Amino acid sequence: MLKKQYLMVPGPTAVPERVLQAMHRPMINHRGPQYEGMFRSISEGLKKVFKTENDVLTFPAAGTGAMEAALVNVLSPGDKVLAVSIGAFGDRFAEIAARHGAVIEKLDFEWGTAADPARLAERLTQDKAHEIKAILLTHNETSTGVTNDIQALAKARGNHPALVLVDAISGLGAINLEMDAWGLDIVVTGAQKALMIPPGLGFVAMNERAWGAQAEAKMPKFYWDAQNIKKSLAKWQNPYTPPVSLLYGLEESLKLMEEEGLENIFQRHQKLRDILRAGLKALKLSLLADDAVASAAVTAVLAPEGMEGKKIQKQMKDRFGITLAGGQKKLENKIVRIGHVGYVAETDILVTLACLEMTLQTLGIPVEYGAAVKAAERVIMEG
Amino acid sequence: MLKKQYLMVPGPTAVPERVLQAMHRPMINHRGPQYEGMFRSISEGLKKVFKTENDVLTFPAAGTGAMEAALVNVLSPGDKVLAVSIGAFGDRFAEIAARHGAVIEKLDFEWGTAADPARLAERLTQDKAHEIKAILLTHNETSTGVTNDIQALAKARGNHPALVLVDAISGLGAINLEMDAWGLDIVVTGAQKALMIPPGLGFVAMNERAWGAQAEAKMPKFYWDAQNIKKSLAKWQNPYTPPVSLLYGLEESLKLMEEEGLENIFQRHQKLRDILRAGLKALKLSLLADDAVASAAVTAVLAPEGMEGKKIQKQMKDRFGITLAGGQKKLENKIVRIGHVGYVAETDILVTLACLEMTLQTLGIPVEYGAAVKAAERVIMEG
Repeated sequence: MLKKQYLMVPGPTAVPERVLQAMHRPMINHRGPQYEGMFRSISEGLKKVFKTENDVLTFPAAGTGAMEAALVNVLSPGDKVLAVSIGAFGDRFAEIAARHGAVIEKLDFEWGTAADPARLAERLTQDKAHEIKAILLTHNETSTGVTNDIQALAKARGNHPALVLVDAISGLGAINLEMDAWGLDIVVTGAQKALMIPPGLGFVAMNERAWGAQAEAKMPKFYWDAQNIKKSLAKWQNPYTPPVSLLYGLEESLKLMEEEGLENIFQRHQKLRDILRAGLKALKLSLLADDAVASAAVTAVLAPEGMEGKKIQKQMKDRFGITLAGGQKKLENKIVRIGHVGYVAETDILVTLACLEMTLQTLGIPVEYGAAVKAAERVIMEG
Repeated sequence: MLKKQYLMVPGPTAVPERVLQAMHRPMINHRGPQYEGMFRSISEGLKKVFKTENDVLTFPAAGTGAMEAALVNVLSPGDKVLAVSIGAFGDRFAEIAARHGAVIEKLDFEWGTAADPARLAERLTQDKAHEIKAILLTHNETSTGVTNDIQALAKARGNHPALVLVDAISGLGAINLEMDAWGLDIVVTGAQKALMIPPGLGFVAMNERAWGAQAEAKMPKFYWDAQNIKKSLAKWQNPYTPPVSLLYGLEESLKLMEEEGLENIFQRHQKLRDILRAGLKALKLSLLADDAVASAAVTAVLAPEGMEGKKIQKQMKDRFGITLAGGQKKLENKIVRIGHVGYVAETDILVTLACLEMTLQTLGIPVEYGAAVKAAERVIMEG
């Protein structure tokens, strides 16, 4: 049976047709005025998405590369770092810093919950000597489908001088984040989530405090050197050859985001989350995250008792063309993750729920056909 | 709210990504060996879809142009033509012939029903003098969602010498039709239905009897002259400049059809029809055609009492991005037509039904959310 493909993973996400079209253009000289005009418009557009007046630096790299760039630009070996982790990507942020010689202190929260700002404040208050140089935060934890309250966590810093570094890779552009208003020192994101382009670009924005730290930081770097990027950016250029077609795509996706409106995009993602969760609950499935902290970009649902999550993924893909993500690390096979970030519409959620009903029934989990879709339609029509 | 677009009309239909990709290639010389190789492969591939050993002639034109080409190549002004019509496209076939001076006798059947082979046989038996030179048949009547039993209708000709001309524009490649085995003299189709490419190409296949009539036919023609096309086809060329990018697309779509398999394609269309009809019935909507003659390519559903069909179309499009077709001529505003021909999957039907539930509710027709989807899922899982 002919199937259409639905990429319901939390990245890379579906790329809009207009973006694909835009990418399908001949190469141009990345040292010429045409490129400079485009890169200027992109760099200014990115500031709006970051809600910042600071420069947004573009790195041809995966999001993980941009996380590394953020760390090595403001830290020195031996610096103490407080890594707040609520999942696999929080752990990764800490691990990268450790690999470069930072001394890591973890502030861990149970997977599926959000970080508690009070516990962060408490720990920082204890640090009278201001040994902690940086606080690592995750905006949206992709591995568990939980969104942290970054505003509250940043506020918990109080007068402590540590820098706040935020991995906003899977959330920025889908879930509100205000770099300047919330006083975030460094914000990192990637291309293949809410920015709706194929993977291959990472972004780092640094405020004045971060640039101050950058001047002193001793972790070795060449490709990640933010000074280099900033110098080229002043001429609307890149120090090393940029992936031109991805930038064509980004120019177009920023236009799409401008047309839809950032606040509308945030509302859409919340609505998609609410529709999906209502449907999943109607199937009596358990959700990993509480409603209060549930991500608007990705939803983690527990596999029914005694069933491997992979079986659900396989049936959804093989029979219906719907790609879901599995659990990572300690959640492997225990959860299935449904991405709904970027170019996702209500109809994608309806299809996913209808096919999940049939998939569960096929796998021996009795469900009432139509029950999830019914609950989802109710939420759609409330709005 | 961001919407994705679902083109659920009976043509032009959605074009598969692989076909769009294939069309996005530089122009080549249509008198060179590269083009000839491609056109040969296309022309041979088309024969399989027509289930014929006869040449399939390609006309750069809409399907209606190919209908005209079929008529003017085998008829002379003053020729008597028996036009079997079950809807708007049957009427059009007759009108084209009349415009060129044929004397038309209509054999009309109520819109929403199929043509009765017994009535055709009866009329032909009365024609002792063999005045009737051609019988015009519609394979799949797009305006009503009814498929004629072409095999039985062709058989009804018996020993009468009239040519059988079949408009198979919206059915060929989606619903079985066997040109040679059923003794059809001329079969016409178009590009933008089951062949899954954008509009712009029409196709006419003629058997030996038709070519015999062609040699005698006196209706004036230049562009439609089948001899011209046939002569060029012998060199795998076209007499006049062909739309090269559409042929790129057709080459790819024929590959897709070969990969899926023609019989599998027919079964898929039947299944899509059955899924859709089960869902519509669950919403207590009336269907124009009986199950026994219901088209596997397009379904006509009656608008609820007192509601204009256009209102449903508008809400489906504006709120959910789903384009449906309206009624034509005397069925205007009385029915809504849902196309499911070509590049259509079960998930498209599920989305259409879910959004139709919400649309009807919005328009004041009370429905049970999920009811149509539930019925559809049952049919999907039966298979």
